[in-house]
Amino acid sequence: MTEQTITSAANPRLKTLVALRRRRRREQEGRTLLEGYDELALALAAGVRPVELYTCPELMADPHAQDDVVRRSRDVGAQVVRLGRAAFEKVAYREGADGFLAVVPSVGATPRELVLPADPLVLIAEGVEKPGNLGAMLRTADAAGVDAVVAADPVTDWGNPNVVRSSKGTVFSVPVATATTAETIGWARERGIRVVAATPAATELHTDVDLTGPVAIAVGTEKEGLTDEALGAADVRVRIPMTGKANSLNVATSAAIILYEAVRQRRTR
Amino acid sequence: MTEQTITSAANPRLKTLVALRRRRRREQEGRTLLEGYDELALALAAGVRPVELYTCPELMADPHAQDDVVRRSRDVGAQVVRLGRAAFEKVAYREGADGFLAVVPSVGATPRELVLPADPLVLIAEGVEKPGNLGAMLRTADAAGVDAVVAADPVTDWGNPNVVRSSKGTVFSVPVATATTAETIGWARERGIRVVAATPAATELHTDVDLTGPVAIAVGTEKEGLTDEALGAADVRVRIPMTGKANSLNVATSAAIILYEAVRQRRTR
Repeated sequence: MTEQTITSAANPRLKTLVALRRRRRREQEGRTLLEGYDELALALAAGVRPVELYTCPELMADPHAQDDVVRRSRDVGAQVVRLGRAAFEKVAYREGADGFLAVVPSVGATPRELVLPADPLVLIAEGVEKPGNLGAMLRTADAAGVDAVVAADPVTDWGNPNVVRSSKGTVFSVPVATATTAETIGWARERGIRVVAATPAATELHTDVDLTGPVAIAVGTEKEGLTDEALGAADVRVRIPMTGKANSLNVATSAAIILYEAVRQRRTR
Repeated sequence: MTEQTITSAANPRLKTLVALRRRRRREQEGRTLLEGYDELALALAAGVRPVELYTCPELMADPHAQDDVVRRSRDVGAQVVRLGRAAFEKVAYREGADGFLAVVPSVGATPRELVLPADPLVLIAEGVEKPGNLGAMLRTADAAGVDAVVAADPVTDWGNPNVVRSSKGTVFSVPVATATTAETIGWARERGIRVVAATPAATELHTDVDLTGPVAIAVGTEKEGLTDEALGAADVRVRIPMTGKANSLNVATSAAIILYEAVRQRRTR
């Protein structure tokens, strides 16, 4: 198979890649960008089938050792295009580009499409704006063995390249979904999943509440927390004890603390 | 007291402020920058005495309501200088400048200078490079009621403006210190503080180890983890259970999970 090579940074094909940084374009095409060797390897292992793979051997740490990802991408049907350095740097969006950029199908089902085990542990992130926070929550969800992450009324889409990047590719290994808050709560009810809402206003501590069985931990935005709609519909409200002066934990940190308390309880009981 | 006003972005005084973004300059002067109303209010509440306060009323959300911080800064001896918008924007270093920038004394003692309670809970962060991670750990340390955070062989200094910013000012409310790894371990020994090292290679889970009494949780860099020196000197090694595909938690997230397990155990026992 002949590999195509693009050396000019003015090549029109590069424009179509840069265009995928815009949400509307990602939604129209149902595709998003995935940059980085480690991230791509993780996505391939999770069953993602890249549509296109752009490589820049000059930027790779070890072109030979890293060939596996090129081979596997081609095996699942990706068109592989080699870029010159100037061309690659035009389309790369993160610092320290390592010579791998793929176009992959967008992720994100509706909650009803999620396939869950009997006693699922779910994370609901309502209204979260910062891609870095969504990405951090995905990394934690992956490590904690969370069965699905649902973005309720999200400001950021799962395909946002900064979500993909800060998730270290786990956005492709953890099942994710998107819905309105009402739909998300309705789905949890139907499925018999107890919604545990994190809010500093709660009286019970997260460590004093049963987090075994089918449970969804819900966290809100860093500034405002969960909406009244989500708080009102929750089965139980919990708070993380805070003794400090600033009295605020990062939303992804809060999610990690409660998820790992759930992991502890689920191992022990 | 007459307030000085600077409108020209070319004013030489502004250069001395920008120079404080460099670590060497901060260390020479023993001073650092603190930007933002909330951060400054927290620092003042923690007893910090700003040397200089630069304000830009045009950028303030509510100049009248926010006057308290100006008054309190002046009360503790700060020289207050008003800047025009162009001048302020030259010295502001974060997005969404809110019209407050102070020069404050640097923080960071040696571990021996720390004043600790009988059964301290300490966080040791070895070699951490990213200011955002140090800042995130400080926010968590503040919330969890950690008695001190020690940076061992740090790549980043506590006065780094991005540490100050991402810590939301908690770098001024949580006691912090800096030392080599050897000094830090030696100090913990002297003080009878058990060092609990976090490493994915440990056999025991963090939830199966006693975290009550005088304890220091030690975490290393995101890429390499703790050094052999720190791992070898630790009293016990623990791991956070990880079931995911990426198999990596952010270092600040790991610290938060173990610190809050310590908080849980210390409340219960």
